[in-house]
Amino acid sequence: MMDHFADRLNAAIRAKGNAVCVGLDPRWESLPLALRQRHGDHSLEAMARAFEEFSCRIIDLVAPLVPVVKPQSAFFEMCGPAGMTAQLRVLRHAHAAGLLTILDAKRNDIASTATAYADAAFAGSAIAGTVHPVWDADALTINPYLGRDAVEPFIQSARLSGRGLFVLVRTSNPGAGQFQDLICDGRPVYRHVAEAVSAWNREHLAASGFGDVGAVVGATHPAELAEVRQVLPEAIFLVPGYGAQGGAARDVAPAFRDDGLGAIVNSSRGIIFAFKPEQADWESGVVQATHKTIADLAAVTPMGRLAGR
Amino acid sequence: MMDHFADRLNAAIRAKGNAVCVGLDPRWESLPLALRQRHGDHSLEAMARAFEEFSCRIIDLVAPLVPVVKPQSAFFEMCGPAGMTAQLRVLRHAHAAGLLTILDAKRNDIASTATAYADAAFAGSAIAGTVHPVWDADALTINPYLGRDAVEPFIQSARLSGRGLFVLVRTSNPGAGQFQDLICDGRPVYRHVAEAVSAWNREHLAASGFGDVGAVVGATHPAELAEVRQVLPEAIFLVPGYGAQGGAARDVAPAFRDDGLGAIVNSSRGIIFAFKPEQADWESGVVQATHKTIADLAAVTPMGRLAGR
Repeated sequence: MMDHFADRLNAAIRAKGNAVCVGLDPRWESLPLALRQRHGDHSLEAMARAFEEFSCRIIDLVAPLVPVVKPQSAFFEMCGPAGMTAQLRVLRHAHAAGLLTILDAKRNDIASTATAYADAAFAGSAIAGTVHPVWDADALTINPYLGRDAVEPFIQSARLSGRGLFVLVRTSNPGAGQFQDLICDGRPVYRHVAEAVSAWNREHLAASGFGDVGAVVGATHPAELAEVRQVLPEAIFLVPGYGAQGGAARDVAPAFRDDGLGAIVNSSRGIIFAFKPEQADWESGVVQATHKTIADLAAVTPMGRLAGR
Repeated sequence: MMDHFADRLNAAIRAKGNAVCVGLDPRWESLPLALRQRHGDHSLEAMARAFEEFSCRIIDLVAPLVPVVKPQSAFFEMCGPAGMTAQLRVLRHAHAAGLLTILDAKRNDIASTATAYADAAFAGSAIAGTVHPVWDADALTINPYLGRDAVEPFIQSARLSGRGLFVLVRTSNPGAGQFQDLICDGRPVYRHVAEAVSAWNREHLAASGFGDVGAVVGATHPAELAEVRQVLPEAIFLVPGYGAQGGAARDVAPAFRDDGLGAIVNSSRGIIFAFKPEQADWESGVVQATHKTIADLAAVTPMGRLAGR
C-alpha cells in the first residue's frame, strides 16, 4: 500500500527544499533546433519522439532540483496515438528519476466513464480480474462542472492507490470569471467548488493534516488565492499562471501556509523554454531558469522556510 | 472547404429519417464472449483490439440506420496508447461507413493548450507548416467551466474545418445540479452557460438557421430541456441519458424543434449491449435495439416527422 499522497508530496518538497513544479508543455516551434532536426521528417510520430526526448531531457535536468513535474496531456494528444506512447514514457522516466508526476489532463465524466479515466490515471485498468497500470501518475487534474457523482469515482480510484487530485477551482486565464465568478447565495461559484473540495479533502487527511483532494487556483488572482486558502486550510494548492502567464512571485505567497507547505507552484515555458532554439547550450538555460524560479519564490513567499531543512 | 457542420448533420439526419446517435462505450465484461475469447491474452493491447473490433462491427450494423456515432474516449484511454490507436481506427471506420462522428472527450483547457486539443480533434496538428489530421472527428464535447477564452480556441479550430462542438450545459447525472443548478442573478449556472453558448452559436449560423456550437442537455431533466431549448432556439442539442440512464422517450421530446430537427439523442448501452455476452447472434440484438430506439423516439417526439422524407 502506497503512503498517503500528501505525505509523499510533502516528503518530496522537504527533500528538495522547494515546491516548484516544472510543467512539461512541449511545443514544436520552441524546441531546440538541433533536437528538431534530429526528428525532422515532420510526421506526427517524429513530433512525438521529439516531445519525448525533450521532456525526458528536461526531467534529467530538473530532477535534482524540484519535487514534481506536470506533463500537459494536450501536447502529447496532438501527436495522436504516438503522442500517448510518448506521454507514457515521459511519466515513467519522471518516476525513474525520483520525481512525482501530475498528469494535467483536466478529465471529467460521470459514473463508470469517470472510473475509466481515473483507473487509467491511477489504479490501473482491470481486465478479467487482472489490473494493468496505464498512466500511473501520482496526481491528476480534474474539472468539477459535472458535480459530485462525477468527482467521486476519481477520488475512489486515487485513494485505492495513494494518489491525489487537483480540482479546478479558480483558473488563471483572463476569461476564468465568466462562470467561476458568478455570485450564488452571496459567494462566487468557485467558492462553492472550494467548499465541495474541502468536504472531499477532509474525508481522508494524512497524519500531516493535509488531504488528497487539492485545488487548482491561479497565480493571476492573489486575492482569490488568499480567500480560497481560508476555505481550504488542509488542501494542497496547485498554482498555475506564475511567470509566462503574468503572475509574480509575491502573488503566489497567499497559496502557502506559514510553514511553507500547502502549495506547489507550476512554471512551464519560463523554465523549459528558457533559451533560444538555436542555442547549443540550451540545457544550461533550463537549469539556470529553474534555480532562478526557486530563488525568486523563496525570497518572497513562505516557501523560503523550506530551504535547507 | 467542408460545408457547415449543422448542414452536414441535418443532411445526415434527413437521409436516415431519424436523429439517433449510437454511443460507442466498449466495456470488456459486456463484450460478446466469443469476441473476448479471440482477444483473450488479457493485456491492454488485446483489450484495445477487442474494443476496436467490437466498435467497428457495431458501426457496420448501425451505419444503414442512424446518422451519427459517438465514441467515448475514456474507454479507449483505459487501454493506454494502444487504445488511442483503436480510437483513431474506429473514427476512420465510422467515416468510411458514411457516419458522422462525435468524439466524446469533454476536453477543456486554456489558450494554446486548448488549441492543441482542438486541432487534434479537428483541423489537424501543424508541424513546420504541414498539417496532419489526428482524430479528424466531426464534433467534440467540451466542458465550459474555464470560460470564454478556453472555449474560443475550440470554436476557431472547429470553424476552420466545418466541424461542431457540444458544450456541457446541463448533464444527465444525479449530482449534476451541485454546481450547474446554483442560482446566480435569478437563474441557474447552466442557464448562464446556455446563454454563452447562444452567443457563440449565433456567430456562425448555417443557411438552415442552425449553428455549430451545440449543447449537451440530459434527457433525465425534461423541464430543463424545454427551458434550455427556449434559450437556444438555433443550437443543436446532444441529449444523453435516454434509456439505460433512466430518460424515457417522451422526456426527450422538448429537445426537438417542431419540425423534428435540432437534437440528436444518444443511446449507448441500450443499443450496443442489447444481448447477453454468450449469445451467438448478438448482432441481431443490436440491430433490433436500434430499430426499437428509433421507433420509440419517433412515436412520441417530433423526430417522427423526419421519417420517410
